[in-house]
Amino acid sequence: MRFLHTADWHIGKKLQGYDLIEDQKYVLAQILEIAKEEKVDAIVIAGDLYDRSVPAVDAIEVFNELMVEWNLHEKFPIFAISGNHDSNIRLSAGTPWFSHSNYFLQTRFEESFQPIEFKNSQIFLLPYFEPIAARIYFEDETIKTIQQAIEKVVDRMQEAFDPNKKHILISHFCVMGSTKSDSETKIEVGGLDAVPGELLEPFDYVGLGHLHNKSALHQKNARYSGSPLKFSLSEINQQKGVWIVDLEEELSLTFRELTPLFEIEEITATFKELLDPTFYQKINRENYVQIYLEDRTIIPNMMNQLRKIYPRILGVERSNGREVQVKRNSKKVVTKDPQKLVQGFFKEMTNEELTEKQNQWLTETLQELTETE
Amino acid sequence: MRFLHTADWHIGKKLQGYDLIEDQKYVLAQILEIAKEEKVDAIVIAGDLYDRSVPAVDAIEVFNELMVEWNLHEKFPIFAISGNHDSNIRLSAGTPWFSHSNYFLQTRFEESFQPIEFKNSQIFLLPYFEPIAARIYFEDETIKTIQQAIEKVVDRMQEAFDPNKKHILISHFCVMGSTKSDSETKIEVGGLDAVPGELLEPFDYVGLGHLHNKSALHQKNARYSGSPLKFSLSEINQQKGVWIVDLEEELSLTFRELTPLFEIEEITATFKELLDPTFYQKINRENYVQIYLEDRTIIPNMMNQLRKIYPRILGVERSNGREVQVKRNSKKVVTKDPQKLVQGFFKEMTNEELTEKQNQWLTETLQELTETE
Repeated sequence: MRFLHTADWHIGKKLQGYDLIEDQKYVLAQILEIAKEEKVDAIVIAGDLYDRSVPAVDAIEVFNELMVEWNLHEKFPIFAISGNHDSNIRLSAGTPWFSHSNYFLQTRFEESFQPIEFKNSQIFLLPYFEPIAARIYFEDETIKTIQQAIEKVVDRMQEAFDPNKKHILISHFCVMGSTKSDSETKIEVGGLDAVPGELLEPFDYVGLGHLHNKSALHQKNARYSGSPLKFSLSEINQQKGVWIVDLEEELSLTFRELTPLFEIEEITATFKELLDPTFYQKINRENYVQIYLEDRTIIPNMMNQLRKIYPRILGVERSNGREVQVKRNSKKVVTKDPQKLVQGFFKEMTNEELTEKQNQWLTETLQELTETE
Repeated sequence: MRFLHTADWHIGKKLQGYDLIEDQKYVLAQILEIAKEEKVDAIVIAGDLYDRSVPAVDAIEVFNELMVEWNLHEKFPIFAISGNHDSNIRLSAGTPWFSHSNYFLQTRFEESFQPIEFKNSQIFLLPYFEPIAARIYFEDETIKTIQQAIEKVVDRMQEAFDPNKKHILISHFCVMGSTKSDSETKIEVGGLDAVPGELLEPFDYVGLGHLHNKSALHQKNARYSGSPLKFSLSEINQQKGVWIVDLEEELSLTFRELTPLFEIEEITATFKELLDPTFYQKINRENYVQIYLEDRTIIPNMMNQLRKIYPRILGVERSNGREVQVKRNSKKVVTKDPQKLVQGFFKEMTNEELTEKQNQWLTETLQELTETE
């Protein structure tokens, strides 16, 4: 079996207020072309089809039209799951009618143990789920974390393994030790939401969604495809694309790049330079630009003047002569311990430290959150 | 062809704050039983499947499970359209995959001119639409009203008529002269949103949704099925059910009644009677009850005492010894001229009359609304 692996489309997402729907249509159209060129047997979408549990109608239209084209017109089999950004129930509407044309959109945890037999492979579609779903399904109160759940899930899946077939898992979670970007909007709490890579070893290939960087994970048999578009400034240096996964014999992987409608770009310059045609004619002003201003003086009506030349400004910051790199380190906040985050926020808002009692409440609450997650 | 005609399910609707989802599942389950008993060839649902354009997930689950059971398990062909309460785009997700099992859910005005050929009939599925959709489709700026649109629509449909077949139209609008209930949430503006019955004459049967009373329309070849449940106190005396439509030869219609989980009931009594077991043991206290209190004195903690005995109180009013019938006339407000409605509302809020200037603005605004509707 040879297939294309993509994930994290987040249709309907905005980038600093800019609607990305045209950008998304642009790259998703390339995926179909790649699928044709590479003559794949199927297309895999590993969750987060939409950006929100209740997508806007234009997002629904885009996704619907794509699936009609890919599956009904171009006859590509589709294997898809819901991610943490999707509403599994909203997404499940109509899915029982899809499979007759080899379009499998799995949103139910309890149905993920039955593999789909396709070509030389058994495909397990495991949508994003919360530990509570596994606790109920396995009737096991000891399951508190995704890690504990995945252990049980993989055991159960292996019971259905046909030794003469390849075994593929499509899923949507965080594998321990992966590198994260800004745009994934999930704070890691003590590593309890992450799955050790060893648990995935029984599979010939694990096609993952959730992290937006295709290089987030280094494991022989598992990959994040990453998102097809850059969704934050922190992803500026990531090459976006899709995996072509060949399992005819030994696993072979090829990364096919996608070209965005508009790039994300950082510009460091003085205000005078930014307004100078000899400067801006050398760059693509249509791109999403993050501007680092080298000026130190006050500039009246700055944003209006800049927007006339750069229609897609993500932000303007003063570089103050320091290295821009310094600025970019601020993104590290998302990987901070939640306790420290709350303490920092409290300090910022009230200019006081948390009392001992408050700190104790915070610890207990975070503990509870971790346990019930 | 012999089919069952229902409409206006409004899944997810609440009645005075009471969740009706169990009541809806209860009556909708009866519809399947009737379809089996009557050995119909298909089931028709003439719009307003959901109560809201963004239904709650439990509403989506109920509708999805029903369609899986009716269409995929019981193999009933389904002909359905979106109504004014549905979001046509949200509802359209997945519909292109449905038709292979004879499940047709039409949400697009522009696709309604292509009849579905089924048994001895041509079925036209015309979803709820706004005049603007017809204006664009026909490229005719003179189309301002539903009446003008339907004239064009019916002409266009007739071009596709096969004279050897029966012709069925399924749609969702108000036919002129129909009787309305409280629960349809659309104020008639000068009759411009209503369609003259004569326009529907080319069809052998017109299965309508929108009005909740099966007796709202008196026309030989057209019927509202009405809602399967009472959705307001004003519908208290309406018998709810579905039509069995037989078009094998001449049109023959049978109304099959549905039994609600809980009835809507009006009770006129004194507070003392209402609390007296010999009184309330004679009635079904589980019903939705509208209470007309005959007392004239102040009753402390009244609602709490009543709710202990009557768990589903819709409202409590003082009958003041007058006939309850007087009370019920208040529903007539919905058929009032919008100009008078606004004037009355202004008076009630400010205790002043509209000035001449204000009246003029109101007239102009209502005029514009009517034109752009």
